[in-house]
Amino acid sequence: MRLVVIGGDAAGMSAASQARKRLGEDDLAITVFERGHFTSYSACGIPYWIGGAVPDRDKLVARTPEEHRKAGIDVRLRHEVVGIDLDRREVVAHDLTGGGETREPFDHLVYGAGAVPVTPEWARVRDAGVFGVQTLDDGQAIHDWLDREPRPRRAVVIGGGYIGVEMAEAMVLRGLDVTLLEKSPQPMAKTVDPDMGALVQKSMRALGVEVLTDAHVDGLETADGRVRAVVTPGGTLPADVVVLGMGVRPNTALAREAGLPVGPTGGVRTDLRMRVEGVEGVWAAGDCVETQHLLTGRPAHVPLGTHANKQGRVAGINIGGGYATFPGVIGTAVTKVCDLEVARTGLTSKEAHAAGFSFVTASVDSTSRAGYYPGAEMMTIKLIAERRTGVLLGAQIVGRAEAAKRIDALAVAAWNRMTVEEMTALDLSYAPPFAPVWDPVLIAARKATEAVHASL
Amino acid sequence: MRLVVIGGDAAGMSAASQARKRLGEDDLAITVFERGHFTSYSACGIPYWIGGAVPDRDKLVARTPEEHRKAGIDVRLRHEVVGIDLDRREVVAHDLTGGGETREPFDHLVYGAGAVPVTPEWARVRDAGVFGVQTLDDGQAIHDWLDREPRPRRAVVIGGGYIGVEMAEAMVLRGLDVTLLEKSPQPMAKTVDPDMGALVQKSMRALGVEVLTDAHVDGLETADGRVRAVVTPGGTLPADVVVLGMGVRPNTALAREAGLPVGPTGGVRTDLRMRVEGVEGVWAAGDCVETQHLLTGRPAHVPLGTHANKQGRVAGINIGGGYATFPGVIGTAVTKVCDLEVARTGLTSKEAHAAGFSFVTASVDSTSRAGYYPGAEMMTIKLIAERRTGVLLGAQIVGRAEAAKRIDALAVAAWNRMTVEEMTALDLSYAPPFAPVWDPVLIAARKATEAVHASL
Repeated sequence: MRLVVIGGDAAGMSAASQARKRLGEDDLAITVFERGHFTSYSACGIPYWIGGAVPDRDKLVARTPEEHRKAGIDVRLRHEVVGIDLDRREVVAHDLTGGGETREPFDHLVYGAGAVPVTPEWARVRDAGVFGVQTLDDGQAIHDWLDREPRPRRAVVIGGGYIGVEMAEAMVLRGLDVTLLEKSPQPMAKTVDPDMGALVQKSMRALGVEVLTDAHVDGLETADGRVRAVVTPGGTLPADVVVLGMGVRPNTALAREAGLPVGPTGGVRTDLRMRVEGVEGVWAAGDCVETQHLLTGRPAHVPLGTHANKQGRVAGINIGGGYATFPGVIGTAVTKVCDLEVARTGLTSKEAHAAGFSFVTASVDSTSRAGYYPGAEMMTIKLIAERRTGVLLGAQIVGRAEAAKRIDALAVAAWNRMTVEEMTALDLSYAPPFAPVWDPVLIAARKATEAVHASL
Repeated sequence: MRLVVIGGDAAGMSAASQARKRLGEDDLAITVFERGHFTSYSACGIPYWIGGAVPDRDKLVARTPEEHRKAGIDVRLRHEVVGIDLDRREVVAHDLTGGGETREPFDHLVYGAGAVPVTPEWARVRDAGVFGVQTLDDGQAIHDWLDREPRPRRAVVIGGGYIGVEMAEAMVLRGLDVTLLEKSPQPMAKTVDPDMGALVQKSMRALGVEVLTDAHVDGLETADGRVRAVVTPGGTLPADVVVLGMGVRPNTALAREAGLPVGPTGGVRTDLRMRVEGVEGVWAAGDCVETQHLLTGRPAHVPLGTHANKQGRVAGINIGGGYATFPGVIGTAVTKVCDLEVARTGLTSKEAHAAGFSFVTASVDSTSRAGYYPGAEMMTIKLIAERRTGVLLGAQIVGRAEAAKRIDALAVAAWNRMTVEEMTALDLSYAPPFAPVWDPVLIAARKATEAVHASL
């Protein structure tokens, strides 16, 4: 059997590795086409490399092409797949280093083409200091740009989601003057509720980032092949480097051309085993697929490395003759802005409303450790619970050290459709160095329970 | 109506406060009898006060008697209840300051007498430097003893459970030479499996504690009203202060005398609303009660502040005319030995075996953050899953910073009877500063799933 994988990052290589684990080279030949220079890297780590916390690019690579090859996976870097022929069951790939075209037959195909940054027409300028942050090649390009003489001094980051805030911080750490433009009234508007986003905004400003909200961009000014400014209705912002953090969309051009089904979110549709719906022997995984939101029951596109790894693993196990499923997501995410930790799971108020839920919210302030224990830090937890049933629909945490990872307990509670009243009895860990005697999660559950009762 | 509460710490005062919140002074008179000098204190914080991390005893007091009195709760300190008359529905209390006897009638009674340290016959010496660590008065006595001249220099801690290891560390921080005696082959033998306990032992030795395992105590040597040594079969250990960490038992002497039902674990039996079984208007909560272990379905005695607070709150809500239940526990606990974090939930291997489960275990080593992110620390996670069904029965974590609180996600999973295979799909938070792309919890679930498959 022959397995061909399109895309050599998290999803594709997890699929390849899991399939290889189950089937030896005599039973399965595996060929991976990767457009860039790297395999199995942490795109999520790019801001930390740019910012200097991670000293070396290669540390972001979990497994090199050579390591994969040693495991019996034929990795072809700088090869871009330009066509999928489902009738002949082969893919057509271009060697980007100038070596012509390859046609590779497959019995199984994994489509792991990832996502592409949303790039407005005005931002489509090449080699001018305008960057998306999607691949390690993107990261390398930014790194190189920042090292060029004359050194960029002013950065404009467009979009205040994860990538935007992380890259803004990275640029500050590199010594640049940074302006963040966010079209909403506060950063992380898709991630957390406005009251929580306001805390992020405060933290970013304390870090020295100029945050412009309700901001729009008309275009860029370039000169001598370099970006010079970002043009907004409110004025022109000088910029030596521009980072796009306006979101991503599934990279499905090839998939659509081949007739693979694409869902309402724009991602390739798969079943629970990551098999492309209705197409025998074709699998998809990672940022290019649509998945299911387990709390709304509706399709969702959530491009995160953690899902890509899980989905790729599931595809690979199934290709290898095993059985595994990826049931869906509940919207958990976490990030860090300076020393402010931000986490969420489930639905924000806006998302819950859009899904048709009637709900109550409750916010509490508490501490990471017993109040009397050294190092106790404040945190705010907000819960969203369905009216009447009290089912936990969402949770958000903003705090300092030891705050954000508490989201996992809330994620498991939401995954299991617990009510906030049931949650008040949860046997969570307590000792003074780790929590007040009522963990903030329990305090929040208590307050949300009261809100549910009041809503009856 | 009249509510009388026996015991003014977590359980009793939570009950009193919740009842007061729902019923004003015209509807409910509340009298609390407390034998000691303090109310609503964190007994769990005592080792940190002794060790110096918490500078001031009063920081351990969440609410003082005066604060409770202001809220309309008649707190009588230094009053020991010596009898409960269920027929006349009154309690008899002695004023320990010498003021005679009070008889106090009640409509509702909350029994919150706590627990008492297991104290062998040879350890029953008064004012000689031998201490349990159960009440803040105990803590004060230890603190005073360590400040006496000539200053104690050598401490022996008997018992390597939470209290033992925490007090051993506290004594080291106070500059004493510390020996810990543990009857099992490693410390924390009731808390974690031997392989995890071995890691604790290593950490304690690194801290400078002499850990003697498989150790027994024959008695004490005293001279001039002070302890001088601990006598063991292996020799005599000089000691200027001895701390007992041999466990606690429910303080039920009064309850038994009054005919309140006591279960097989020695704790007072209650229903889910914390009403003493079969006795109208009498409630019990905290370290003196028996609860239900939700994974074994069997009675359990788990004396922890977090349960005491929850149970007291539930009793108070019900007394106040509301509705709340305490469904039981799953055995979650956490502690810290120097910079080693130790956490558990569910059952240990020994407990799972005793309950009749056939099970598999899986241990993984991973890191708290992405391996390339600064500050990533190693941790070990061990899972115990039922054979065939794969239901999560227990989890243990030993690691450095940011390790232990991950137990909460596992506790919520166990609470909801998830299988380890279901857990591999959990949507836990990921970003490089918070986890590797596969959170250690997920890696452990994957490995445990393989072990379950292998057990089929």
